[in-house]
Amino acid sequence: MRRIKLTVAYDGTDYCGWQIQPNGITIEEVLNSALSRLTGQRVTVIGASRTDAGVHARGNVAVLDTESPIPPERFAHAVNPLLPEDIVVVKSEEVPEDWHPRYQDSVKTYEYRILNREMPDPLRRRDTWHVSFPLNLEKMRAAALCLTGEHDFRSFCSIHTGVKTTVRTIYKLDIKKSGDLIVIRIKGNGFLYNMVRIIAGTLTEVGRGFRSPEDVKCILESAERRLAGATAPPQGLILTDIEYGR
Amino acid sequence: MRRIKLTVAYDGTDYCGWQIQPNGITIEEVLNSALSRLTGQRVTVIGASRTDAGVHARGNVAVLDTESPIPPERFAHAVNPLLPEDIVVVKSEEVPEDWHPRYQDSVKTYEYRILNREMPDPLRRRDTWHVSFPLNLEKMRAAALCLTGEHDFRSFCSIHTGVKTTVRTIYKLDIKKSGDLIVIRIKGNGFLYNMVRIIAGTLTEVGRGFRSPEDVKCILESAERRLAGATAPPQGLILTDIEYGR
Repeated sequence: MRRIKLTVAYDGTDYCGWQIQPNGITIEEVLNSALSRLTGQRVTVIGASRTDAGVHARGNVAVLDTESPIPPERFAHAVNPLLPEDIVVVKSEEVPEDWHPRYQDSVKTYEYRILNREMPDPLRRRDTWHVSFPLNLEKMRAAALCLTGEHDFRSFCSIHTGVKTTVRTIYKLDIKKSGDLIVIRIKGNGFLYNMVRIIAGTLTEVGRGFRSPEDVKCILESAERRLAGATAPPQGLILTDIEYGR
Repeated sequence: MRRIKLTVAYDGTDYCGWQIQPNGITIEEVLNSALSRLTGQRVTVIGASRTDAGVHARGNVAVLDTESPIPPERFAHAVNPLLPEDIVVVKSEEVPEDWHPRYQDSVKTYEYRILNREMPDPLRRRDTWHVSFPLNLEKMRAAALCLTGEHDFRSFCSIHTGVKTTVRTIYKLDIKKSGDLIVIRIKGNGFLYNMVRIIAGTLTEVGRGFRSPEDVKCILESAERRLAGATAPPQGLILTDIEYGR
C-alpha cells in the first residue's frame, strides 16, 4: 500500500463544494469516482481543505492509499482523462504512509479577486466578485495591516462549533491592483469557516468608505461576528497553495 | 424611430455563435429576445461581427431601431437584468439612422490567448487554448512580421464564398507573454472566415518548431489553405474591439 499526495485544481462554479453531501455533486465525489475507475479499487481521498460551494482551487491537496502499480508521479496524467474539464490533478507524488494533509502544520494561501469596474465582464464572472463602486485601496491596505499577525478571529468566522480555538496567524495580507482587477492575497497558518470571505467583505466595506480602517481593529477586539462585514460571495475565492513543513 | 448602437461582451462557450440558426441558441437570438421584452416591440439587431460558436467578445457591436422612450445611454443598464450572465451590454449610445455596423470602414482587434504550460488550468479552460509543449516566442514574432501589412490572405481563410476579395490589411500583430499566458493581438481592417484562428494555429506550429518563420511567407504567397496550419480552437479567441472612422 502506498500513499499518494495529489495537488488538485478546480473551477468550483458547478459544484456543491469539496465534501461529499447528499444534495449535489462535489469535488471529492468526482475525484473518488475517477480514481476508483483508474485503480480498479474503491478509493476514498482525504482532502486538506473542504472548500465551500462555488469556491475554486489551484492547489488543494488530497491523499489516497492504493496498491496500483502506476508510478506515483504518473497518477496526475493518468487520472486527468477520467475527470471532467473543471477538475485537474496538477501534480502527484508519493508521501509516507502516515502523512496526513490536515493533522500537521501547514501554511495556506488564498486569493480573493474583485473585478472593480462599472459593468460586469462575462468572461470573468466565474472567478471574480464584481464590485461596481470605486474602492479606496489605501484604506483597504491600512485595514489589512490591523489583521496581520496573531489574533482571535472569532468575529471573522461564521460558525465555530468543533474548533478548539479561534486564534489564527495571518503571515501576510497584501492587496494588489492590476487594471480593473483587485487581488487580496492572504497567507496564514489556518483559516476559520468563511474567514477569508468575511475579511474580503469587510475590507470592501472599508474601501467603499462605509467603515474606517480603525473600525477593523475594533471588530477584531469585539470578537462578535455581527460587527464584521458581509461574507463576500464564493466565486471570488481561490485556494492557491498549501505548503507543508518538513 | 432611433438607432441605438450597443457594445456587447459575451462568454461564447455555451452559444452556437452570434448568428441565429436552427440548431442551437445564439447571442443574436438572446439579445433580440431581451431587447424585445425591454421595449415591448419586436427587435431585430444587426451585428458587426458574426462570431463563431465558442468565440468570445469584449466589444462586438450591434444596432437596433426603436421607439422606446428609454434614453439611449441607459439602454445598457436597462437590458442587462434581462440577459443571462454570460452576455453583457457594456455601452449604449444613439447613432444616425443610416449608421450601419458593417457597411463602413472599421478597424477590428482580436486577441488569441494560449495557456502555455504542462497542465491545463480549469479556471482558464473557457477562454484560452491549452498548449502543453514549449513555444519559441522569438520565432512566432518573426513569423508574425511576415503577416503584417496588406496581403492576399486566401491561404488563411476556411471558406471564401461571397467575398469580393481576400486582400486584407493587418495593421499590427504582436505577441506578448505574461507568466504562462501568451496573447496574440491582431488589429486589421477586416478578417476572412477563420482567419485569426488559422493565423494563431500557424504561429503555434512555428513556435513549436514544425515550421520556420520563412515558411509563413511561402504560405501567404501560395494562396492555398492546405499549406497553412490547423485552425486553432474557438475558446482562445476574443473580439476585443471595433473602431469606426468618423
